[in-house]
Amino acid sequence: MTITGGFWADRQSSNGQSTIPISLDWMERVGWLHNFDAAVSGRLPQERRGREFSDSEIYKLLEAMSWQIASRADPALDSTIRAVSGRIAAAQEDDGYLNTMFGRSGQAPRYSDLEWGHELYNVGHLLQAAVARMRSGVEDELVEVARRAADHVCETFGDEGMRSICGHPEIELGLVEFARATGDQKYLHQARLFLERRGHGSLGEIEWGRSYFQDDVPIREATVLRGHAVRALYLSAAAVDLAIDTADTELLAAIERQWTATVARRTYITGGMGSHHQDEAFGEDYELPADRAYCETCAGVASVMLSWRLLLATGNPRYADMIERTLFNVVAASPAPDGRSFFYSNTLHQRTPAPAEPSDEVSLRASSGLRAPWFEVSCCPTNVARTFASLNAYLATTSSSGLDIHQYSESVIRATVEGRGEVRLRVHTAYPAEDTIDVVVEESPDTAWELGLRVPAWAQDATIEIDGVSEPVSPGRVGVTRTFARGNRIRLTLPRRARWTFPNARIDAIRGTAAVEVGPLVYALESVDLPGGTHVDRFLADTSRDPVVTAGGVFVTGYLEGEYADGWPYGDHPHASTPDEPISVALTPYHAWANRGPGTMRVWMRAALEHAGAGRLGGEK
Amino acid sequence: MTITGGFWADRQSSNGQSTIPISLDWMERVGWLHNFDAAVSGRLPQERRGREFSDSEIYKLLEAMSWQIASRADPALDSTIRAVSGRIAAAQEDDGYLNTMFGRSGQAPRYSDLEWGHELYNVGHLLQAAVARMRSGVEDELVEVARRAADHVCETFGDEGMRSICGHPEIELGLVEFARATGDQKYLHQARLFLERRGHGSLGEIEWGRSYFQDDVPIREATVLRGHAVRALYLSAAAVDLAIDTADTELLAAIERQWTATVARRTYITGGMGSHHQDEAFGEDYELPADRAYCETCAGVASVMLSWRLLLATGNPRYADMIERTLFNVVAASPAPDGRSFFYSNTLHQRTPAPAEPSDEVSLRASSGLRAPWFEVSCCPTNVARTFASLNAYLATTSSSGLDIHQYSESVIRATVEGRGEVRLRVHTAYPAEDTIDVVVEESPDTAWELGLRVPAWAQDATIEIDGVSEPVSPGRVGVTRTFARGNRIRLTLPRRARWTFPNARIDAIRGTAAVEVGPLVYALESVDLPGGTHVDRFLADTSRDPVVTAGGVFVTGYLEGEYADGWPYGDHPHASTPDEPISVALTPYHAWANRGPGTMRVWMRAALEHAGAGRLGGEK
Repeated sequence: MTITGGFWADRQSSNGQSTIPISLDWMERVGWLHNFDAAVSGRLPQERRGREFSDSEIYKLLEAMSWQIASRADPALDSTIRAVSGRIAAAQEDDGYLNTMFGRSGQAPRYSDLEWGHELYNVGHLLQAAVARMRSGVEDELVEVARRAADHVCETFGDEGMRSICGHPEIELGLVEFARATGDQKYLHQARLFLERRGHGSLGEIEWGRSYFQDDVPIREATVLRGHAVRALYLSAAAVDLAIDTADTELLAAIERQWTATVARRTYITGGMGSHHQDEAFGEDYELPADRAYCETCAGVASVMLSWRLLLATGNPRYADMIERTLFNVVAASPAPDGRSFFYSNTLHQRTPAPAEPSDEVSLRASSGLRAPWFEVSCCPTNVARTFASLNAYLATTSSSGLDIHQYSESVIRATVEGRGEVRLRVHTAYPAEDTIDVVVEESPDTAWELGLRVPAWAQDATIEIDGVSEPVSPGRVGVTRTFARGNRIRLTLPRRARWTFPNARIDAIRGTAAVEVGPLVYALESVDLPGGTHVDRFLADTSRDPVVTAGGVFVTGYLEGEYADGWPYGDHPHASTPDEPISVALTPYHAWANRGPGTMRVWMRAALEHAGAGRLGGEK
Repeated sequence: MTITGGFWADRQSSNGQSTIPISLDWMERVGWLHNFDAAVSGRLPQERRGREFSDSEIYKLLEAMSWQIASRADPALDSTIRAVSGRIAAAQEDDGYLNTMFGRSGQAPRYSDLEWGHELYNVGHLLQAAVARMRSGVEDELVEVARRAADHVCETFGDEGMRSICGHPEIELGLVEFARATGDQKYLHQARLFLERRGHGSLGEIEWGRSYFQDDVPIREATVLRGHAVRALYLSAAAVDLAIDTADTELLAAIERQWTATVARRTYITGGMGSHHQDEAFGEDYELPADRAYCETCAGVASVMLSWRLLLATGNPRYADMIERTLFNVVAASPAPDGRSFFYSNTLHQRTPAPAEPSDEVSLRASSGLRAPWFEVSCCPTNVARTFASLNAYLATTSSSGLDIHQYSESVIRATVEGRGEVRLRVHTAYPAEDTIDVVVEESPDTAWELGLRVPAWAQDATIEIDGVSEPVSPGRVGVTRTFARGNRIRLTLPRRARWTFPNARIDAIRGTAAVEVGPLVYALESVDLPGGTHVDRFLADTSRDPVVTAGGVFVTGYLEGEYADGWPYGDHPHASTPDEPISVALTPYHAWANRGPGTMRVWMRAALEHAGAGRLGGEK
């Protein structure tokens, strides 16, 4: 499957041309790659640079480069992978242990800090890199290094070994995938050991509680995702993989329940997850402040990974909906269009114009209102890189009855329909910039099979047209079973009405506000689009008038409130504004915000009328 | 001045009987006092316990004990002060340097970590302890130790010394007070040096920016308090002291402006300050989430210190109003009634019943929904202790024209009215539990002087009655000038109507909610008072009906909303509830919340009707 044009092709292009090479440059520049050389030459710990998880950044980049090659041969990139792999291999110890932070004289002993050391986490990413390499048919030194590291983990933490787990889940995901790629079930067994051990308080108590690393409750008993968002999502993704590979329906059902509760109560409209800056964690139910939304880019990546596995396990299009929402409104929001700077966190409300980040320096800040080129903790750029490089995989899946298209892009989809033969489809669309998606059959077996298409939950009045006959379709999955022939065209139309969206009244932080969505895109109001750069908090949206889509963009109508005089901000009557002349204001797709310099921004605009009031009595309006 | 009964006498009693002695016990138990002994016996750093500011906790406790003695002789407590002072004195180095964390072999060098080391901060608290000691007329070893430490600071950081500052302001406050107590102006000069040096970026850059330690902008140029709340407030308090002592009206005006902006945009209804858990910092303007309110107890203490100094400098009763609000609703909320456990942070919305804290263990958590007996960072208990022990001082002040009473409690007030003679007043009141405050003259000079009384900003329909003649008075200061005679009685009546309070519409986090206040007390809804312990988030308050005060408590009327089914929480119309039978529910004074076990709590209740809607158009209701 190959994305051949449109929104995602642009991202893949800047990813390959900019993000991947500059990430490699940064890793040399900040010394994270040199750590491996220093390990070989005996200059650790004194020359060690970066945090305890810096090794993993190189592995994530190797994964990105490997996916990149999987979709298109690139001998230069292949040489780079081999060269980097060689430097890593040289640092691996005889027993397979591989880490630049632990175990040497002057360093903490191996596995002496499971809560924070990230040793097994690093190996997990190494395994995922090796799996990506194997998916392009290569079994080189990287794969061999990974196998030795995985064997070391199994020996050290197996049935007879240390009964411990890593503070940051990821090894589980790496092991399950490595088991699939190699066919060796011992890795799957080890992943299960780690998963089943977690939740029994074997890690130390910390300020934020053991829920931070999901060691508070066994995964089968948990009811909702909690603690550090990336940790929770990686762990859940591994659990789904394990459930699929071991036919563990109870485990799968547990994760589905947790996903349902998490999406209903702990997820932002963008698909973003994680409400706390302090511990990068999910908040409690309905604790979703727009202004302190953490929504780490990596949590978006991890959420896509989890929903993807649930989609594979169940076929339920709600998971593909969430993937789409998160890809467009979290993952795509992180990198600048040129792929050279990134959001680490993805706020939904910028109250103060951000101080400009230096364009060529490592940022100390995870949160700001401007994208930065690199971070002290630089997990996000490489996570974006590996996601974009592997994006082709998310387009479609095959099943026993046929083929499902989940994500819409200008693309070519080739697949083998089980027991029937090869299918090749060409998808023509400028989605999400236009309403129509044309699927053209270029090759098909001459027996019947089913083409499944996703109708997103937001799509009202959608239609499917086959052989010139149009039919309405409802959100969900629509299947077309027939003997397709070359040249058949199926047109799915998803009318892109701009719509007001209102929050559940339980979400305190955004009560009395409304947002605009168009198709799968969440929109934002930026001060640069208000007269004189007025602060977005002074704009009151008139939600009684529909937002409109024109050739020039998406517009809403509203009023500008005056400045407040400073005084005690709590009084004996609700504040009310006097209406002024209405103005029409352009919105920006959320993923493109902050591309015009520092400013203020709101996804959830204050609503002018009681229309948007919370907890009103007397039934629906 | 002496508090002789009522609300604050109870707190002072549990402070003296419990908080102070158990704090001393804890300091022995966790090894913070032993650090000084270990310094003497050469067993540092190996036997060092606690964080880099643990020395200061002992100093704060010495300050509390010294204030305690200042109001009532206590030979046993005096012996304790001398014994602890002796252990501290033994650890002081020849040049006056005193710190158990730095400077020895195996420790970081002195002043090598000004951002985080807290060395000067510790000395600041030592100086405040010595000042408290001197205020009770004693000049013992503690005072001598402080003098030598202060001299060392002046030598090291003076005009010819290191041009640096401490990451945590406090030395400035200690130095100004020490200058007053000793009459030696060199300490005042040193305080000024520290204040003027700050704001020029001499401290290192950190993740949260230099605003964290107020090193971003010179104090005269700043427009609002920002960064770590306790740091910002201590620094501002020192600046007011310096402004008073050097007649620096520009500096005083700068702090008044910053106070005004901070109170208007960055202060909770309780008087609490600090919206961020991550960096214990003020949020941005109008960033005041109830559920993530940090409102550190120490920030409440520091806010009282700042407002007190501004009251002294200006006489403006708004500062006394803020002291009252903060004392009742932040400082008094921290300790349990028995003075044996404490809130570190003071949330305004508890979403999940807190896990029970062990009653006899050090808590790792600054935030929870239950009070804990001690903390790993245990700044709050000792800050409460020194505040309660010195509370008498906040009752009244004298001026050239007479005497002002600022805080109302059953009390005896003795003072010398400048140029006229001795005044002794007895104040009879159960305030804030009742409406009337009777000031009875027990002794007065036989010339006219002015008695000033504060009418709080919340007090509608207040009256003053003198010699049986009653007159209405407005919020602010009311002055009564006459030649008072023994037996004169002035009655101030402040009707305690329960009132709905609504937030400024700019505060996103609590839009569409309302709180109840009665007199100076903020009230809270606790789940224990709802049928079946229903979650407080399901209660919709009917703000069209006034809350009522009865002999049984304070009650509001509202409705219980049903549970939500889990689904995507953002939709195409605002949520509306169907009204059920109204119920009447008791509220609890905020300072007394969580005294009945784990539960959920809201200060800002969801408002049932559009009455509380935000940003409504069309003028006031």
